[in-house]
Amino acid sequence: MVTVWRSIVRKGDTVVDATCGNGNDTFAMIKMVADERDKEYKVESAIASTFSFLKMAVNSHELELVKLFTICHSRMEEVVPKDFPVRLVPFNLGYLPGGDKSMITVAKTTELALQAASRIVSSGGLISVLVYIGHLGERDELDVVESFASSLPMKTWMSCKFEMMNRPFEMIDQWLHFENLG
Amino acid sequence: MVTVWRSIVRKGDTVVDATCGNGNDTFAMIKMVADERDKEYKVESAIASTFSFLKMAVNSHELELVKLFTICHSRMEEVVPKDFPVRLVPFNLGYLPGGDKSMITVAKTTELALQAASRIVSSGGLISVLVYIGHLGERDELDVVESFASSLPMKTWMSCKFEMMNRPFEMIDQWLHFENLG
Repeated sequence: MVTVWRSIVRKGDTVVDATCGNGNDTFAMIKMVADERDKEYKVESAIASTFSFLKMAVNSHELELVKLFTICHSRMEEVVPKDFPVRLVPFNLGYLPGGDKSMITVAKTTELALQAASRIVSSGGLISVLVYIGHLGERDELDVVESFASSLPMKTWMSCKFEMMNRPFEMIDQWLHFENLG
Repeated sequence: MVTVWRSIVRKGDTVVDATCGNGNDTFAMIKMVADERDKEYKVESAIASTFSFLKMAVNSHELELVKLFTICHSRMEEVVPKDFPVRLVPFNLGYLPGGDKSMITVAKTTELALQAASRIVSSGGLISVLVYIGHLGERDELDVVESFASSLPMKTWMSCKFEMMNRPFEMIDQWLHFENLG
């Protein structure tokens, strides 16, 4: 997944981690956008639970690029600066790996967040969604993601789904990509 | 699709075009395996309708690498040399583009051909299947391909499906990849 992100994101891009987890995705994104020559670039993150990990894992210059917000990802437009086109918005849906399994993302706000992401992602940018099957509420959420996927206009969005086929039910995940063709 | 094949196939590999069409895939495969230093390498093709295209499109050295057989792809093991591990077996299911739409690949023989391909593909090799939806018989064929996909043992095969989500019904296609992990 990170390989595909890397093919989209350039140094200095603004990116939004829509479902900040243990910090691994945010970390990968910082490394993609951080540029020693310029401190103006920003990583916006909608949910803050990763600051301590980042503090250990990245240098102070890179940490300055990150903004963490403890708000629902459906409200990402309130915190993303208007003048920065956003290149990448990943969603890692479901529960936090290693965390409380009753704390999950929810179909309704995921739907609103996907719509918000589609308004802020620039031409050439990507919304990347990972959906795990096999937890309570995931079926509703997958329905929402798939209907969002089908609703994107063909002329301006490349919308595709990738899934593993030979896994037991609890290990199935689906990965959807929505690229703004501009 | 060809980009992924290129990441798998090396000069000198043996490859089998399981559903020779107008010659485009076969042509791409020749270019991947042809090596000026050695004439021992072979491209095996299960259905011959492309010889005239290849005669125009490739040089005589490259043409020597190709063997075309007008047999059902379920019988590919009869014509693939035993001592050449096969690196790539693509299937392009359905009807011939621009051809007679009543002439289609058939679920039962497709199933047998996939099983045959899984026996001849070497470790590190790939079975690549493109399924178009929206022609008579395609639903049965997709069922067969998906159940083959789910049946591959997880330890030795990476089995995945890729599909476009925002296309009208007659333009939907699905692309499945089965990589032999050895």
